[in-house]
Amino acid sequence: MNVSDSVEYPALYLKRGEDARLRAGHLWVFSNEVDVTRSPLSGFEPGEICAIVDHRDKPLGIGYVNPNSLIAARLVARGLEHALDRSLIVHRLKVALALRERLYAEPYYRLVFGESDGLPGLTLDRFGDVLVGQTTTAGMERLKDEITEAIVKVLKPRQLWWKNDAGSRAMEQLPSYSDLGHGEYGGEVVAREGGLTFGVDPVGGQKTGWFYDQRENRDRLARLVEGKRVLDMFSYLGAWGLRAAAFGASEVTCVDASAAAVEAIARNAERNGLSDRVTAIRADAFDHLKALREARERYDVVILDPPAFVKRKKDFKEGSLAYRRLNELGMQVLAKDGLLVTCSCSHHMPRAALLDAVQQGARHLDRQVQMLVALQQGPDHPVHPAIPETDYLKGFICRVLPA
Amino acid sequence: MNVSDSVEYPALYLKRGEDARLRAGHLWVFSNEVDVTRSPLSGFEPGEICAIVDHRDKPLGIGYVNPNSLIAARLVARGLEHALDRSLIVHRLKVALALRERLYAEPYYRLVFGESDGLPGLTLDRFGDVLVGQTTTAGMERLKDEITEAIVKVLKPRQLWWKNDAGSRAMEQLPSYSDLGHGEYGGEVVAREGGLTFGVDPVGGQKTGWFYDQRENRDRLARLVEGKRVLDMFSYLGAWGLRAAAFGASEVTCVDASAAAVEAIARNAERNGLSDRVTAIRADAFDHLKALREARERYDVVILDPPAFVKRKKDFKEGSLAYRRLNELGMQVLAKDGLLVTCSCSHHMPRAALLDAVQQGARHLDRQVQMLVALQQGPDHPVHPAIPETDYLKGFICRVLPA
Repeated sequence: MNVSDSVEYPALYLKRGEDARLRAGHLWVFSNEVDVTRSPLSGFEPGEICAIVDHRDKPLGIGYVNPNSLIAARLVARGLEHALDRSLIVHRLKVALALRERLYAEPYYRLVFGESDGLPGLTLDRFGDVLVGQTTTAGMERLKDEITEAIVKVLKPRQLWWKNDAGSRAMEQLPSYSDLGHGEYGGEVVAREGGLTFGVDPVGGQKTGWFYDQRENRDRLARLVEGKRVLDMFSYLGAWGLRAAAFGASEVTCVDASAAAVEAIARNAERNGLSDRVTAIRADAFDHLKALREARERYDVVILDPPAFVKRKKDFKEGSLAYRRLNELGMQVLAKDGLLVTCSCSHHMPRAALLDAVQQGARHLDRQVQMLVALQQGPDHPVHPAIPETDYLKGFICRVLPA
Repeated sequence: MNVSDSVEYPALYLKRGEDARLRAGHLWVFSNEVDVTRSPLSGFEPGEICAIVDHRDKPLGIGYVNPNSLIAARLVARGLEHALDRSLIVHRLKVALALRERLYAEPYYRLVFGESDGLPGLTLDRFGDVLVGQTTTAGMERLKDEITEAIVKVLKPRQLWWKNDAGSRAMEQLPSYSDLGHGEYGGEVVAREGGLTFGVDPVGGQKTGWFYDQRENRDRLARLVEGKRVLDMFSYLGAWGLRAAAFGASEVTCVDASAAAVEAIARNAERNGLSDRVTAIRADAFDHLKALREARERYDVVILDPPAFVKRKKDFKEGSLAYRRLNELGMQVLAKDGLLVTCSCSHHMPRAALLDAVQQGARHLDRQVQMLVALQQGPDHPVHPAIPETDYLKGFICRVLPA
């Protein structure tokens, strides 16, 4: 595609009508939307940059292709004025940074949230002068050097880690690895949230090492946990539990299936002077809740922040039943007039279905629920209004009463 | 219906299968669900207390009837153990109060939110030692003396006002009036929010005089408005605008169509020492936005908190177009990298439709939107998970960028 005053990239032609969704704001081209007669997908390298062009030869913008993926191409920039290069990535990083600096007093946040920040396939979390990145598409993987240079230019980090072990990379036929991408090995990495400090492992941890997406939701615990007994299930590094303790909970029990997580919770409690009120237990969540129920243990606040039970659309039935069972168990260990904090990070588990799971569990136990607060991912994980997949985290703070 | 160890009320029989929704948690009986052969609706007085009974003669609980309403009955208490009297209302008030005292440091909040607080048809807002109530059903109207006694017993208010002029009262064939229900005339009524004080008119104001439902949403302005130029449309008493000024906005313009509101905003700005930064203008919102657009005025933050444009389901098409037009106008007076705070209090305008309206407006203007925060009614307006109508307030804080 060669238009005057514009950059030159091979054209990916769309079939008639398949430009409408992109014009309405979406950024993805599915493989069946490509006019493969005019532009065979086999003619593209994985991750190759392209011009995305409609059936009338009108260019929509610049993106990148992966002939091996169901999402055959992603639009990165509308129009053909700018090349998809380091300079464009620098610009996008600066726009993303401006938002986070407006939102937060300290440099601890998700700096880039893929499509929503105009950088499809790139995730970047900031831990002060350490950055942890993740590419999930062949296009972004191919641009890794340009991305690294752009990050170094804009942020001058002490370290940039690539935590490239997401399951979604397999769909793009990308290998799984984690390693330092810039800087020198050594030194500690920490996340700061709500005045607390947590040790983070950028290589061995879950995802990029920390879940900033729940920060504002954890902020909502203020006042609600004062003087209360709190149970934090699926604790990971203890973020929910330790923040509850810092908000004045009298006693916090954190439960996680991983020995490493349980050790980390203890260290994080120690580091923040909360050891006297925080206990960490290694156990399977369902087994532990059943044991607590049998022992007639009761908590004023139960926090359920499990991993995604509905990873793919076809897991919905089974996954939503698991949410129902988990929430029912949670309610069974709640004291009278207790609060249930329940979350799902499954995009394929709609908000309404999670609330239904809670309500069905409550009716089954002859309880009544007041939904007080609907939870969502924090503003450093902006939702792209045209891409529902970018809206994934949901939850509720519910008051549970006798019927 | 007479069951041993239970109270006695006339039975309202449901048709076969019509008990399922109530057993799942809902509280409403529609007129076509009543077995009028066994229990003719004409046999009930408007507001009469009844036992709601399924087709197998199993009682569901106690409620009240209105033979003149599409919602023929509302369930107030499951089981037949307790009479629907002052003592039950006292209990419900205490349960509602316990939640608000947990949520808020000061006695300024919605104390009773109808169905969600187990008192269908009753709304009660608290302004310190003044309460403003609203009954929207014949059942609650009939219980007004018991409710007044219960309120006096639990809260010992200086004044209780009845602001019984809601449009929904017409559907129950109830008259429209506002008057003092308990206490002596005189003295000032104020709302306190975020450290500010606002004068409230419990008789002449909108709804109960104050919109507590937006409090937590206004809290989200913190940091986002510091040093910024803010436009607050449909200001009413200036809550959004004054809170923005208190959060450090450099300049706030409040716009409302009512002369009384504009005067009240000026008084509230004065009272809170914010007059130097707050201007109030009387104008129609659409006209004013068009004039600002023509004059190329730009604001860093534009707040759109209009009255409900979709009051009935059949207004959806026209109403959602109005939201689209309003939001597009709002974006046209936004400065570069501006924030749009947009709300809808129409139950019949779904969250997704409001976000669509914003996104369509943005694409039409060749802008890009990042949805940062989804707004909702505050936790003193709990959602009843089985009654979607109790979830009415929605909104978004969006960042608007060039495409």
